[in-house]
Formats: sequence, structure tokens, C-alpha cells
Amino acid sequence: MAKSKKKKLEKKITKAKVKPLKREVARLREALDLAGTAAPASRGPALSPLAPANGFPALPVIAGVEFAAAEAGVRYKGRLDVMLARLAPGSAVAGVFTRSATRSAPVLDCEAKIGATAGPRQGAAILVNSGNSNAFTGAKGVEAVQAICAGVARAAGVPEARVFTSSTGVIGEPLPHDRITAVLDDLAARLSPEGMPQAARAIMTTDTFPKGATATVEIDGHEVRIAGIAKGSGMIAPDMATMLVYIFTDARIAQAPLQRMLGRLTDETFNCITVDGDTSTSDTLLLAATGKSRAPEITDLRSAPARAFQDALKRVMMDLAHQVVRDGEGATKFVEIAVTGAASAADARKIAMAIANSPLVKTAIAGEDPNWGRIVMAVGKSGAKADRDGLSIRFGDILVAEKGWVAESYAEEAGAAYMRRDELVIGVDLGLGTGAATVWTCDLTHRYIDINADYRS
Amino acid sequence: MAKSKKKKLEKKITKAKVKPLKREVARLREALDLAGTAAPASRGPALSPLAPANGFPALPVIAGVEFAAAEAGVRYKGRLDVMLARLAPGSAVAGVFTRSATRSAPVLDCEAKIGATAGPRQGAAILVNSGNSNAFTGAKGVEAVQAICAGVARAAGVPEARVFTSSTGVIGEPLPHDRITAVLDDLAARLSPEGMPQAARAIMTTDTFPKGATATVEIDGHEVRIAGIAKGSGMIAPDMATMLVYIFTDARIAQAPLQRMLGRLTDETFNCITVDGDTSTSDTLLLAATGKSRAPEITDLRSAPARAFQDALKRVMMDLAHQVVRDGEGATKFVEIAVTGAASAADARKIAMAIANSPLVKTAIAGEDPNWGRIVMAVGKSGAKADRDGLSIRFGDILVAEKGWVAESYAEEAGAAYMRRDELVIGVDLGLGTGAATVWTCDLTHRYIDINADYRS
Repeated sequence: MAKSKKKKLEKKITKAKVKPLKREVARLREALDLAGTAAPASRGPALSPLAPANGFPALPVIAGVEFAAAEAGVRYKGRLDVMLARLAPGSAVAGVFTRSATRSAPVLDCEAKIGATAGPRQGAAILVNSGNSNAFTGAKGVEAVQAICAGVARAAGVPEARVFTSSTGVIGEPLPHDRITAVLDDLAARLSPEGMPQAARAIMTTDTFPKGATATVEIDGHEVRIAGIAKGSGMIAPDMATMLVYIFTDARIAQAPLQRMLGRLTDETFNCITVDGDTSTSDTLLLAATGKSRAPEITDLRSAPARAFQDALKRVMMDLAHQVVRDGEGATKFVEIAVTGAASAADARKIAMAIANSPLVKTAIAGEDPNWGRIVMAVGKSGAKADRDGLSIRFGDILVAEKGWVAESYAEEAGAAYMRRDELVIGVDLGLGTGAATVWTCDLTHRYIDINADYRS
Repeated sequence: MAKSKKKKLEKKITKAKVKPLKREVARLREALDLAGTAAPASRGPALSPLAPANGFPALPVIAGVEFAAAEAGVRYKGRLDVMLARLAPGSAVAGVFTRSATRSAPVLDCEAKIGATAGPRQGAAILVNSGNSNAFTGAKGVEAVQAICAGVARAAGVPEARVFTSSTGVIGEPLPHDRITAVLDDLAARLSPEGMPQAARAIMTTDTFPKGATATVEIDGHEVRIAGIAKGSGMIAPDMATMLVYIFTDARIAQAPLQRMLGRLTDETFNCITVDGDTSTSDTLLLAATGKSRAPEITDLRSAPARAFQDALKRVMMDLAHQVVRDGEGATKFVEIAVTGAASAADARKIAMAIANSPLVKTAIAGEDPNWGRIVMAVGKSGAKADRDGLSIRFGDILVAEKGWVAESYAEEAGAAYMRRDELVIGVDLGLGTGAATVWTCDLTHRYIDINADYRS
């Protein structure tokens, strides 16, 4: 190649790409100087500022479940990316999945198996990999699931029909399933009741912290334990999201009531969060009950023990759901949207989601701007019944707007001070009826764009 | 220079120089986020890179319409922020408006008047201000509209029932209408048939360029002229958007057929664009026909002259709609989403809008990442009927995916090269039926967040 041509090309690229970036770096450094903040030394996937203050919780051992995690190198190097959980014979497994019309091969496989496992109470296994979602991978995707299921069945000693798999990561690239099957024997050999924290790490993608939650409940003098793990953290919207959640309990309960319970509680927890309104092709929530607790079996869902158990399960699910929002890509604010007084519960939900998913509301929150006008806009566009003059808006306890205008008592400084908090509650009352809904979301920041404009490179 | 060598060198330079800078920018932005400091605007209020190459078009005089613009200081200082258009007696005025449930006071006033103006063919006037939207301003908002309408009626010599007003800008702050009424006499004194370009400037908010379009059509040997102006550029979604559009023609046509024509063509143009999926409380599109052309009156909408006129009108509307997308807040890519083979036209539209509004698709486009997996995700979440294995995806003429997986002929480098263009066509075929829809959108960039996290301050 002629040297002059090479120089010319180099010059061209420098002018088009390098120079603007250098200018941007200079501008940003200047802004950091003005803010009195030192420029960061290295990038690193910094911890979300909304991460739980106490870190990962101490999870109890759930009798009847063992875990192991490994580095299979599916996509990431030098980090855990595969986890195996083995459930003792007698375990019931319930599941809910993404409603996407382009569900991934592992999701379709799980759905088919969950429906068919109401009867047998044999052992079971869950295998999850991160880095590649095995979604939109055609016939090869199905083959990959089959190969993994066969391998897990053999290594873990459970029937193939009781092996559930999930994959999370890039869509549309073939899953190198041989890298996973290559570590199955090792995983099976290292299964341990204490392995849940490692499992929580192995399922992470762009998550900045592993997510775990636990609760216990006493039934007839016997302790029943619940513990779960989850991963987020983009493509999060109701009807499930890029969310993988695995919850384990030693409760004794059959598959059918477990499934009913899970469906109802999912609507009240995971289906009430949104990060970006996008819905994954891979969302999976599995709930396994090993039956190893000495508490009596739960049969009637309206009984007092059943209700106590459900309350505890809901606490675990809500905790994990909130952690997913707290680790939403680029999130700096945890936001609760509480809608009341709507014409119906469905309308309340529509309005809450319209606010939670509005890019203009989310960027205003990122900018700590008490821009309640954008909330009015989102109410208006939601499609739900709304009467401008009956609407009222609150930031926490601060009444911001009512009777079709800004509240007389409202001071912009109070609103601005409130918006500087990490955790916000935006209240909207429609003044029409008794419909209510609460959803949780985060703000939309530059970091979301950094992460998602460059996820694959 | 051999193409492959050039590519290789380009890649090498990019890796060595561009990537580290990109990482640095991301790191600095993150630090700024954590420091709670807004990043400085990346490109200043620079012209959108997608602005029409030839600038603002030469608009013809439309007989029977005069314009004037002024600096009223509603919010902005030192720039045009109010425009007046006066229509000669005999003009018909049609309009379509936002469907938001929290419509602004001026929109409610226009809607009431449009319905009532089918009969009289008196003079009319349009008054628009930028900087304050007079939305969610309660009883004071209605008073402001009344004061302005009364002032315009007096200054321009038209009936108050024929004065149409629009306001665009911040929501929820009282409109200082006295600043507008103070300049009405001056506006009326300076009305001129050549004033349309100034009017296009006066209605801008975060727009980076004024928007105009024109077309002419010959009917029975006589020229009929059409010219219009518009403003964008955030809160843009179908069912209208933060869009104000004013189109003028010297055609002779009664209000009822004009209104029918406008409704149908809006569905095919302005209701097919989206920037951020948010819907404004203020959207207004007014179409005025002065009847001053010597061409015969248009009465039967199926006649050849009526069809020729509608074709020209549609060209003007589509041109303005595309300009609104080209000036979408922070836009660096103009994207056409063409969906075919859907089970129905409604399904095709659902899918096209789900893709166009997906933050993950829009950030991938901003990052020039041919991440077609996210398009699969958006198809799946749309709620429309889809069969994973019948789906095919194209970038321009490049077949990317088919039969449930990446196409055999597809090379990632070809996709990556395509994504570096300013103008993209994403084709999605569902392989199910004949439903088709095309929508236009832009990418989601840091600049969108810069603009919207700090709009009010």
C-alpha cells in the first residue's frame, strides 16, 4: 500500500472520528473539573449507585437444592457464566415466561416441560448460561437446547424431561453449546447447598451486582425457607423482561397450586417493573419447591398457612424485582409511580406504565428536573380516561398540581430539592374512581446509551 | 488501494484510536453521572446532521395569505417567537389535533372552532407562539387564549370565532399572554405575502432548522399552489406529536371535503413518524384553502383534479413529516421501517412502531451496530401475530435473517458498513399475509438526553 494513501486514510479517519471524540473528552473533563470531581482512572463496570447498601444477602441453605457455577467461556472470558442447580426427587417446579412472539429456544422448551411436569415428582435440574441467549437461532437453537438437556440429565442424574435451561445475552448468534456440555461433569461434581451466591454471579450480563433475596415463614411450628436469585438489567418491561429469576423453597406444595400462586404473584411484582419498555425473548422465572421442610403440605391456597407462605414469597419476589430496577442499565434513580383514583385498575396501570416508560419523564428525572408537565403529557397519551381538571400530582408528600394547574402551595425549589433524592415516589390521582396501580422504574441516562450503543463490540 | 487492505487499515486505526476514545468518553460520562453533574451538550445547538442539504426551500406566495413574525419574549430572548397568519375572506380552514386526554387550552379552543366554521367563509387568522405551551394551566390558560383571540380579531380585522391559536413549549407554566397581545398591532402592520420563512422560524423550539415544503399542481390549465411550515422535534409520536404544522393553498375547496382529505392524509404521513413515542398535549395541524386560484372548485374527492391535488398535498405533508424526524432531538440517523407480510395492516403498523420506538433498537442504530437481534425482540414484543421461522429482516437490500436465523449469505461486515450510513431502511417481512406499513424514525443518542434532562433550566 502506498504510504501517502495510507496517510490520507489515517488523516480522514482522524478528522471524522478521532477529532470529535477528542473534543468530547476535553469538554467532559472540563465539566468534571467544574464539578470538582476527579476523572475516573479506569472504566470498570461501576456498581449501580442504587445497589442495596448491605450488598448480597446471606442466603439460607434450602434443603433439597444444590448449586454449582463454572467458567465455560460462552462469550465472556475469566468469569462465571454457567450455573447448575439440582433439585431432589419430590420437587415441584412452576414457571412463567416471556409473552414475546419470538421466544427463545430454551423458553419454548421450558414451557413445554413445565406443563407436562404436574404429575411426576422426580429430581430436576436447572442450567443457565449468560453471554448468549440462543434466541432466533433457528433449528440450531433447538439442537443446542437438546444437547445441553441431554448432557445435564446424564451428569446430574435426572430425567431429561425435568431439565430446564435458560440462556441470556446476545440474540441471533449460535450458542456454542459444546463449551457448556464440556463443563457439566465438573459442575455436577461440585454441587453444594451453599452455592447459590456463585449461581447469582454466573447468570449476570450487564448487571453491576448479583441479586438475591430471602424470607422465612413458620407454619405449624416448622420453618419454611424461601431464597431466590435474579438478573436484569436492560430490556426490562412487563410481560416479563430480560429477567431470569430462580426461587427455591423447602415448602411442600404440589405443582398445580405452586403454578397458580406464581402466576398471581408475578402480576403483582415482576410485571410491575420497567426499565426501558423493551421485552426480552428469554424471560424466565422458575419456582421450585423441594418439600423438604417438616411443615405440613400446602393444599388450600386460602388457608392461613398458605397465605403466610404467599406473603413471604411475595416479599422475596418484590425484593428481587426492585433489585432488577435498581440495576437498570444506567439507573441513578429508583422511582415508584403510584396511580390512584383512576376509572379502573386497568386504566391505572396504563397510566403508571405510560409515565414509567416515557423517555421525556425519564430524562427529566435523570436531570433532577421537577418537570411535572411531562407527567401530565404521559397521562394524556396513555389512552386511559383522564380529566385534566380532576388530576393531581405529588412528589412524595409535596402536592405539585391539582385542579388543572400547579398547586397554590407548590414551590419549585421544594420540587427541585425532592428530585435530588436517589429514591422518588411520584403520585398521580385521577379523581375519577378507585382504580389503583403501582409500578417501579428508573431514570434514562447517558450510561444507558453507552451500554446499549456498544453492547456487542 | 485494495479494498480489503483499506478495510483492514481502517479497522486497525479504529481499534487503536477510536475505541479507546469512545471508552474514555463513556467513562467520563459515567463519572459525571455519578457526580450528579449534567454532561455538557455534545454538539451544541448545532444543525442536525440530517437537515435537508439545500436548506429552507423557496416557498411561493399563496394568494390570500399574509404572514408576520415578532420577538415577543414569551420565554426566549432575542429571537422570533410569535407568528401571525391572516387569511383572506373566502378561506376554508381544516384541522387535526392531538388525541391526548390532557390537551392544551389552545387545542381545545381550535377544535371547537374548526367544527363550527364549516359554513361561513370569512377571513381568518392563525397566531402561534413558541416557548410556552399553555397546557395544564387551568382556568388561566383559557383566559389567555381568549385574550389572545380577542386581540388578534381586533388587530387583524377577522371574527374572533375565526382566530386559531397554538402554543408550544413548556407545560404547566402560565402563558404571559400580555407579551403576545402587546405585539399584535405591530404584527398586523407588517403582514406580508412573503413572510412565511420568518413564520417557520418563529414557531421553532428545540428545532435546529426551520421546516418548509411546497408543491404545485395544474388543474384545468390553472396552477394551484401549496406551501407549508412545521416544527418538531421531541415528544413526537403518532396521534400527532409536539408538532405544529400550517399548510396553505390557493385551491378552491369547501371546509368539509378539505377536512376529510386532511384526516386521511394525516394518517398516511404525520401519523407514521415517531421520535420518542411521547405524545404532546399541543399538536396542531391546520390546512387553509384561500380559494384564490383560478382553477375550478374541488368538490368530488374522487375526480381527477381532486386526486392530483391530494397527491401534491400529500407530498408536502410527507416532506414536512420527514423533516420533523430529521430534526428529531439528537438524531444522527434517518430510519425507515418497512414492514410487509403481516397478518393485517394494523399488525404491520404495530410491529413497525414497536421497532421504531424500541430504545434498544434506537441505541443500537446510534452505535452503528447491526444488532438485528433487537429487531427480532421488538417484533416479539409488539403484540402482533408473528412466526419466528417465517420472519425475514433486511438492511436496505442486504438479507440479514430468514427462516428463524441469520441468513446464510449475510456477512456482519456488510451489515456494519450499511449501518454507517446516515439514512437506513430496515425491512421486516412476517411471511404471514399482505399487511404492510411504513414508518419513519431516528436514533436515540446522548444528545437526546442532553436536551431533555435539562430542557427547562
